[in-house]
Amino acid sequence: MRNPQLNGDGSLQHLLTIEGLPREVLVHILDTAASFIGVTEREVKKVPLLRGKLVFNLFFEASTRTRTTFEIAAKRLSADVINLNITVSSSTKGETLLDTVDNLSAMHADMFVVRHSSSGAAHLIANHVASHVHVINAGDGRHAHPTQGLLDIYTIRHYKKDFSALSVAIVGDVLHSRVARSLIHALTTLGAPDVRVIGPRTLLPTGVEQLGVSVHHDMREGLADCDVVVMLRLQNERMKGPLLPSAQEFFKSYGLTPQKLALAKPDAIVMHPGPMNRGVEIDSSVADGPHSVILPQVTFGIAVRMAVMSILAGN
Amino acid sequence: MRNPQLNGDGSLQHLLTIEGLPREVLVHILDTAASFIGVTEREVKKVPLLRGKLVFNLFFEASTRTRTTFEIAAKRLSADVINLNITVSSSTKGETLLDTVDNLSAMHADMFVVRHSSSGAAHLIANHVASHVHVINAGDGRHAHPTQGLLDIYTIRHYKKDFSALSVAIVGDVLHSRVARSLIHALTTLGAPDVRVIGPRTLLPTGVEQLGVSVHHDMREGLADCDVVVMLRLQNERMKGPLLPSAQEFFKSYGLTPQKLALAKPDAIVMHPGPMNRGVEIDSSVADGPHSVILPQVTFGIAVRMAVMSILAGN
Amino acid sequence: MRNPQLNGDGSLQHLLTIEGLPREVLVHILDTAASFIGVTEREVKKVPLLRGKLVFNLFFEASTRTRTTFEIAAKRLSADVINLNITVSSSTKGETLLDTVDNLSAMHADMFVVRHSSSGAAHLIANHVASHVHVINAGDGRHAHPTQGLLDIYTIRHYKKDFSALSVAIVGDVLHSRVARSLIHALTTLGAPDVRVIGPRTLLPTGVEQLGVSVHHDMREGLADCDVVVMLRLQNERMKGPLLPSAQEFFKSYGLTPQKLALAKPDAIVMHPGPMNRGVEIDSSVADGPHSVILPQVTFGIAVRMAVMSILAGN
Repeated sequence: MRNPQLNGDGSLQHLLTIEGLPREVLVHILDTAASFIGVTEREVKKVPLLRGKLVFNLFFEASTRTRTTFEIAAKRLSADVINLNITVSSSTKGETLLDTVDNLSAMHADMFVVRHSSSGAAHLIANHVASHVHVINAGDGRHAHPTQGLLDIYTIRHYKKDFSALSVAIVGDVLHSRVARSLIHALTTLGAPDVRVIGPRTLLPTGVEQLGVSVHHDMREGLADCDVVVMLRLQNERMKGPLLPSAQEFFKSYGLTPQKLALAKPDAIVMHPGPMNRGVEIDSSVADGPHSVILPQVTFGIAVRMAVMSILAGN
Repeated sequence: MRNPQLNGDGSLQHLLTIEGLPREVLVHILDTAASFIGVTEREVKKVPLLRGKLVFNLFFEASTRTRTTFEIAAKRLSADVINLNITVSSSTKGETLLDTVDNLSAMHADMFVVRHSSSGAAHLIANHVASHVHVINAGDGRHAHPTQGLLDIYTIRHYKKDFSALSVAIVGDVLHSRVARSLIHALTTLGAPDVRVIGPRTLLPTGVEQLGVSVHHDMREGLADCDVVVMLRLQNERMKGPLLPSAQEFFKSYGLTPQKLALAKPDAIVMHPGPMNRGVEIDSSVADGPHSVILPQVTFGIAVRMAVMSILAGN
Repeated sequence: MRNPQLNGDGSLQHLLTIEGLPREVLVHILDTAASFIGVTEREVKKVPLLRGKLVFNLFFEASTRTRTTFEIAAKRLSADVINLNITVSSSTKGETLLDTVDNLSAMHADMFVVRHSSSGAAHLIANHVASHVHVINAGDGRHAHPTQGLLDIYTIRHYKKDFSALSVAIVGDVLHSRVARSLIHALTTLGAPDVRVIGPRTLLPTGVEQLGVSVHHDMREGLADCDVVVMLRLQNERMKGPLLPSAQEFFKSYGLTPQKLALAKPDAIVMHPGPMNRGVEIDSSVADGPHSVILPQVTFGIAVRMAVMSILAGN
């Protein structure tokens, strides 16, 4: 089956998921992002690559943070950006998702950045739009959040250079995390030999081993000698029913403290997709400590989103 | 009585309603819009006609769709756009409508795009502002929605070229539709000889014949040999009380199906202002079929709004 | 103790409060604002001083009016503006204020315009951000609203030229007014010899005399021969409990009518920060009368905010 996010010549048509994306496409995005890091540090932080292009931030699920990063990335590329928060708006008035997309396309949309609570929404839109329109998945249900996965591997590459001997531990609520799924696919594609997921049974998806990771329920065991620790947010808002005894107990078992971090390699980096629950999944002294690269992740995220938009627009 | 939307020399000062607008003003807007169609198809979709101008989208009634089309039109003309959703905002804090307008004018507003649930709100503002400030009515109560009327006649002219032998059928909830009122005035002004409204008695305004239209309660009779079918949205949110038995029954009598459409001319076009209620006022096979020009309407709507803004700004 | 809003060389690093700001800094802001008045009257109202800079309107308390003035000021300076309404947004998901600020800083924020219901919030942020990031307080609790104070003294200077023989009366709800506090500090710094506050005991802060003002409970006595009357908004939304008998009784004692205004100097000016409660603190004939400079205040407010942003950005 052809990958719907690639064109016949292998170039990127949409960014929907990291799953199935060839290594060279991933590396091309990372390299392009690196070229934009300079732009964001210049006095005038704009390049005209998307001048006159119309980007819709089509958010069916509220997320100020992610929407803002895409808005900034698009504005740095000189695009015009329209923010549509469809959950708040009564505008659709019973209109179907694809009718909404058709209407916005008829307003000459060049790109849709889509967040939706249903897995597959971005795919549905990508299969529907005309060939000059590009879709970026900004998070669909529990499925994928590819630009987060990309900024994660950008960060890892930045600090660790090489993936070929890397041990990465992903800790916490893997079950509800589209971030974790996207990152695992990216690491596998780039050849990281040792990816571990760590969490209580109730927060790990059944059969997660099939993604090529090892599973640990004991955090001390799972963190041993790893190079990268990725802490996940405890997604309280997604949990239905009592999967967990309490935030305090979770912190005791799976919260990242200096003591637990000491089991990783001395130069290990600590990542977190944000927003953090300090004292739940991560101790403040670690979040603000010398191993933390949590804020650089945010900065790299702008460059990665600029790279994806720029590549999709054909630059 | 002088038309408040025209200057002494006959040029457009505000766009408040199509009623009473001279034929040459309508044609000038349509011709200007045609010149912008090219702009929206260029690689860089911007022209500097409103550069440095400040346009306020002043929405006292939520409408993401209409607000977005004006925002896109203004940005294509290089204006700065400020969106103000006064229903959501608590900012007015009891301030009167005209005090709000005075304050925004003191911030050097050049243009107000106004939507309000009260008929006459845009007129009130137009009568109040200084002479260098221009007002566009983006829908006031049941009264008028002139840019929608303009994009409708733009669409008809695009496909049918000439109005002098045209039969146009407007179907459905005419009573609550400012779209219908604006379109009827435009068609009359441009000399369309045969305009029909079709709907149940409860959804047609009393005395609608006085606008120069014929009235039909039987859809098959009303559609016979017409060139243009304009379906209206069933405005559930505006209906008070049980005007209709059910959406299913409405569809049976007044929903546009392929069978009913076959009674119109073979090259008839089907229009709808959106958002559509598929299966209520229109069948999906018609909405997506070869007669439908519903999405081109949206595209032309951007060009028409650019034209109105550009003409008001004196270009 | 060093003033946190000034750099070692005395230049402005943040604008947090007028209290403690040296006279020459105030005058520099007013002079810079005067130079921008011309810009706002030009055909193209933009200057490229903040081109490529990223300004966050970080509003933890809703205020469309204030947010809009900053948005306009920033856009006139060609900055990119991101509006974040954190009260509405669920995005922070329990994140701390400083984590939110850190994240936005990591997105290369150059300036934060902050409104918050807690006094001191802008100071907290200013103490936290890196040295190339600038903070403007757009209102914190009952504490300060420095750009409003600046536009007030800009307005007074514009109409009265000189502060050295000036009598200024501030009338109404001084207790809940950050506007009053900021203005009193500005007037004292610029050497106005006679500043009076007028209001019922319940609406004047205890010990207000220590700010260098005289206190009046009788409005006729307080207005006698003054040059400037500043009416404050009755902040109903801030009052807890029955501080006042009724709006009608307040108007009778402290509402500005033509009769009461006649006690001031013949060329007295009337100011109000807006939004006005007509018939509560001010009579319509005064609000719209020849002494009123309420709308010019709004216009000057844009220029003053442009000046502050431009000075902070190092221009």
